[in-house]
Amino acid sequence: MEELIEKVNWEKNNGIVPVIVQDTKGEVLTLAYMNKEALKKTLETGYAHYYSRSQKRIRMKGEVSGNVQKVKEIKIDCDSDALLLIVEPKGPACHTGNYSCFYRKLGEPEKVEGGIDYSLTILRELEEL
Amino acid sequence: MEELIEKVNWEKNNGIVPVIVQDTKGEVLTLAYMNKEALKKTLETGYAHYYSRSQKRIRMKGEVSGNVQKVKEIKIDCDSDALLLIVEPKGPACHTGNYSCFYRKLGEPEKVEGGIDYSLTILRELEEL
Repeated sequence: MEELIEKVNWEKNNGIVPVIVQDTKGEVLTLAYMNKEALKKTLETGYAHYYSRSQKRIRMKGEVSGNVQKVKEIKIDCDSDALLLIVEPKGPACHTGNYSCFYRKLGEPEKVEGGIDYSLTILRELEEL
Repeated sequence: MEELIEKVNWEKNNGIVPVIVQDTKGEVLTLAYMNKEALKKTLETGYAHYYSRSQKRIRMKGEVSGNVQKVKEIKIDCDSDALLLIVEPKGPACHTGNYSCFYRKLGEPEKVEGGIDYSLTILRELEEL
């Protein structure tokens, strides 16, 4: 297990990495954080443990609410500084009671007619140099 | 547009927020970052712009490779310090050429037989206090 834990680049962000949490149907539930110990506990138990940056401690997700997350798969990104957990959630992920923490739209981007000519964007950037 | 940008809690993480990037089919492509200006450019153009922490500058995703990401939806999480972008990617998201940056499994968690008795976990934590 140590071998798996050492695959993560812990140095880059002061010992913690962001963790995208997604359910098995593809819905993104939350963005959480882990330190080494949280990942170790997750691997040991099969249930998601996160590092709370505000409380500065590890919590098993759902330890009080019962809304635990059973981990089906853990993926690591190309530069080893972010994780993706595929979980089976027992109940909502969000403290508001919503299934996902991302239950609000920020707003639609302005409409783009046809494609964007990004060669122009590069030219504009070069002009600014 | 300023109104939308100000919905984000920029103070919490020194002016940048993590951004989960997901395609319209539900596959998570990458974890990126934005500052205010990157979000502004994204909203203005409809194409994803991220803040590169290593280069300390904003880049339109795909500005050189052509692998741009057309933004379909932007969501914000419950405590307003993380974003979720739903995009239509033109080409791979990862600099390795992989479709997603999360193309590697870290390893399966150890098997859990039946459910876990998390009341015991809490008891153990209390014992440790």
